[in-house]
Amino acid sequence: MKRIHLYDTTLRDGAQTRGVDFSGADKRALALLLDRLGVDTIEAGWPGANPADTALYADLPRLRHARFAAFGMTRKAGLKAAEDPGLAAVLAAGTPAVCLVGKTWDFHVTSALGASLTEAIDMISESVGHAVEQGREVVFDAEHLFDGWKANAPFARDCLRAAADAGARWLVLCDTNGGTLPHEVDRIVGTMADLLGGDRIGIHAHDDTGNAVANSLAAVHAGARMVQGTLNGLGERCGNANLISLIPTLTLKLGYETGVTAEAMAELTQLSRQVDDRLNRLPDPRAPYVGAAAFAHKGGLHVSAVAKDARSYEHVAPELVGNERHIVVSDQAGRATLMLRLAELHLPLAADDPKLADLLALVKGREAAGFAYDGAGASFELLVRRALDAGAPATYFRLAGFRVVDERRRAADGSIETLSEAQVELEVGGRPVMVVAQGNGPVDALDAALRRALEPVYPSLAGLKLTDYKVRILTPEAGTKAITRVLIESRCPSGERWSTVGVGSNVIDASYQALEDALVYRLMTRGATVERAVA
Amino acid sequence: MKRIHLYDTTLRDGAQTRGVDFSGADKRALALLLDRLGVDTIEAGWPGANPADTALYADLPRLRHARFAAFGMTRKAGLKAAEDPGLAAVLAAGTPAVCLVGKTWDFHVTSALGASLTEAIDMISESVGHAVEQGREVVFDAEHLFDGWKANAPFARDCLRAAADAGARWLVLCDTNGGTLPHEVDRIVGTMADLLGGDRIGIHAHDDTGNAVANSLAAVHAGARMVQGTLNGLGERCGNANLISLIPTLTLKLGYETGVTAEAMAELTQLSRQVDDRLNRLPDPRAPYVGAAAFAHKGGLHVSAVAKDARSYEHVAPELVGNERHIVVSDQAGRATLMLRLAELHLPLAADDPKLADLLALVKGREAAGFAYDGAGASFELLVRRALDAGAPATYFRLAGFRVVDERRRAADGSIETLSEAQVELEVGGRPVMVVAQGNGPVDALDAALRRALEPVYPSLAGLKLTDYKVRILTPEAGTKAITRVLIESRCPSGERWSTVGVGSNVIDASYQALEDALVYRLMTRGATVERAVA
Repeated sequence: MKRIHLYDTTLRDGAQTRGVDFSGADKRALALLLDRLGVDTIEAGWPGANPADTALYADLPRLRHARFAAFGMTRKAGLKAAEDPGLAAVLAAGTPAVCLVGKTWDFHVTSALGASLTEAIDMISESVGHAVEQGREVVFDAEHLFDGWKANAPFARDCLRAAADAGARWLVLCDTNGGTLPHEVDRIVGTMADLLGGDRIGIHAHDDTGNAVANSLAAVHAGARMVQGTLNGLGERCGNANLISLIPTLTLKLGYETGVTAEAMAELTQLSRQVDDRLNRLPDPRAPYVGAAAFAHKGGLHVSAVAKDARSYEHVAPELVGNERHIVVSDQAGRATLMLRLAELHLPLAADDPKLADLLALVKGREAAGFAYDGAGASFELLVRRALDAGAPATYFRLAGFRVVDERRRAADGSIETLSEAQVELEVGGRPVMVVAQGNGPVDALDAALRRALEPVYPSLAGLKLTDYKVRILTPEAGTKAITRVLIESRCPSGERWSTVGVGSNVIDASYQALEDALVYRLMTRGATVERAVA
Repeated sequence: MKRIHLYDTTLRDGAQTRGVDFSGADKRALALLLDRLGVDTIEAGWPGANPADTALYADLPRLRHARFAAFGMTRKAGLKAAEDPGLAAVLAAGTPAVCLVGKTWDFHVTSALGASLTEAIDMISESVGHAVEQGREVVFDAEHLFDGWKANAPFARDCLRAAADAGARWLVLCDTNGGTLPHEVDRIVGTMADLLGGDRIGIHAHDDTGNAVANSLAAVHAGARMVQGTLNGLGERCGNANLISLIPTLTLKLGYETGVTAEAMAELTQLSRQVDDRLNRLPDPRAPYVGAAAFAHKGGLHVSAVAKDARSYEHVAPELVGNERHIVVSDQAGRATLMLRLAELHLPLAADDPKLADLLALVKGREAAGFAYDGAGASFELLVRRALDAGAPATYFRLAGFRVVDERRRAADGSIETLSEAQVELEVGGRPVMVVAQGNGPVDALDAALRRALEPVYPSLAGLKLTDYKVRILTPEAGTKAITRVLIESRCPSGERWSTVGVGSNVIDASYQALEDALVYRLMTRGATVERAVA
């Protein structure tokens, strides 16, 4: 009675996410990730609705634990179930389970379908019955069930009963427009579970009020035993219920069983980021359990308490979900934060070590000058390693000077264009190097020139990309004394990201510092040795 | 009994957000936005904890509706409340309300404070009493109340009762580590509300399981009448309860009253984006109610149903929260918003005026190209006035070209310096003008050169200052096709501020567009006449 069936619809409802376009390869790769995670059913698409989904079902990957379901609609008004081409296409996909969606809101039946309530019930009953006759396990998605219940509870109930009587294994209560609140879910699911048995009831929630996770939990609490959701909460509008958030809560906190083992749970953070990587999305640092900030501690007060006992400010141990504690350095933090952060870098210092006081003074001084290490972990690590003489070379190269020119002029064909070109003079391996490169602005040109000069000597810089560039004027009220802070995020081809910071009265200087840190950090973590004179 | 007190802690708990560093100017600007929204109390910081917060409380902006609270801790163990320097600093801030946090989890009292349970209760009682004697309304934040309740309910209850007996107006149950689930909040808040009266109970929730909003709603459902939260759910780790999500649910769906009027609610989307703009964060497209995707319909099935009746797939009307429907196949989206904005500019157009459709297409096209007018009202007004031929001259000057050079080199005295110099060629009043100016970076130099060229002809540009400059890469994952958006805030000596936007593949081009808009907007609003040939 404590076993929850996890039904994933990332590949179908998640495909409605604004800005997401799955390829067939994406869907196959994500299906394998879902199988590895331990979900029970994977809804891969809607065969018959478009050629891509039909082709996908003809070429599904082999799964180890999960099974595939095909999604579709109950039969159209006026047709026999066995003669409905849409339904036939869904069954032709040959999956062990099929999910059929039917309308259970009276207003929607009359306004969108133009059918009578009696026919709507026949459509459900006959479609489910037809699929069951074909030997399929049927999941009935009751569209708009909660709105339908509030408008006409007897009709909504009759729809579910018709599906149950026709042999549907699961009756899934869908909050299609996401407007239902947890106390309503609790009441309505409870009523249906009493009537039809909770072990047949499922929940399908959307996040339009920020309650998709809570609504899913409320349904389980009221007796439902199937949860439909998506990875990272992908889905139309504000998204579907996020299985990545729900799985740890259901198992670690509420004691339910799912197909997700402790080993798979320990890979949850990695899985979540793999999904974002595949879809070319930036991971949400604030995602529950798996976000980069989910176990980050910034306030000085919290940090000293975390140092004493992690339970103080962590609701679960981060390693259970494959995440890690992260101590953020900021001007709010003091000695305890710094000690924890150093321990993370495997550079522990004792509280009474004079080097600790020196380092704290260094960090505070830099922060007073405008540096913010909170969002620039790579620059912080470089600062610390250099101060402690612990693995960061003073430099891999020396800048002699640069000159960047941005010129806007009329081209020969009459169009106006702006060209940015950087000329950089470096000393690398004891030899002077001078390079010129163009870019989409002065910093991009500077970045291109630096990498052109360095790549021949340090091949591990190849493919490095500047993925974010933020500029902030720190003292906008101060007139002439304004200081600029630049934050840069870089990414290497394998997907690793790191952030660096630069500060200066000239934005180009600040940008150069952040760029240099980004390159040096990459070289250091790849264990590059400093090139001496090569000639 | 249906009035909910909204207590905002964006400026204090929200400052713990990873990657967020508030300046004093940020905090003052956000306080004014919060006041305009209609929250009841604004917790601006922790006076005494750091010099920045102490300075802020000495220079708070004047509010129209809300009041400020100062945050701090109950007295330290072993001190008298009247002699505790931390408590004195909080009271010295002079705010009508103070929020004092005290520990109510027995394990935490012994492990983090090293105090006895009896002394912990005395610390609460005496600190609250001392603040009440000083004439302050006291909000008592019961840290870790839910964990404390589960570990030792009698002690947790005694802590709250001690605060109540000492005169605290509000007893706020804090889920400090964010691990409590809605059904637990419901039970524990219900018990406390029965004991001490719901109209004294508040809730402070974090999003570590994705339930911060649901936990806040559960508490209100159980009788609590204060909700603590932040704008856009800013806050440590996964964030605090998001007031932007909670306010519409409480008022539009549950019938509670808050200080947020229907007019302020209709600006909620704009407010949410202004907060992100100020903090240089990308707005979350999937945010409930206010996200760009919150009312976006992608599925063809949904879209046709929405066209028949919006209620089908929208749980509230988007215009109630100042958002708009986005339908891929329709050009209806945005019309109402545009009409509202035009009315604000005293340029009303009727719904069936063909000029409205043309203008909508123009704005949509610019937005598709990357322009964001939400944070750039001056550029929007220029665009509209030019399109409608309503008071904006085509131009006050013409740019022929520019050349900006940033050079880093060793000066004669051995120091390294970076100089930025812009050379600009304009046509003003029918005459070519060429000027050169230096600045703290290419954009600052460009700005200085433009003003040097224009001030002799247009004296109203004197004293104009560039106060903020933000750069955002719009397609960071797209490699070569990245587009840059620049937002500039300008200020004139009398204090008026306005914001402009530029977009381009070259950041200098984008910056020039925003600069030109800033200058032209100033000239237009000062009624400058276009200078013709003066020779």
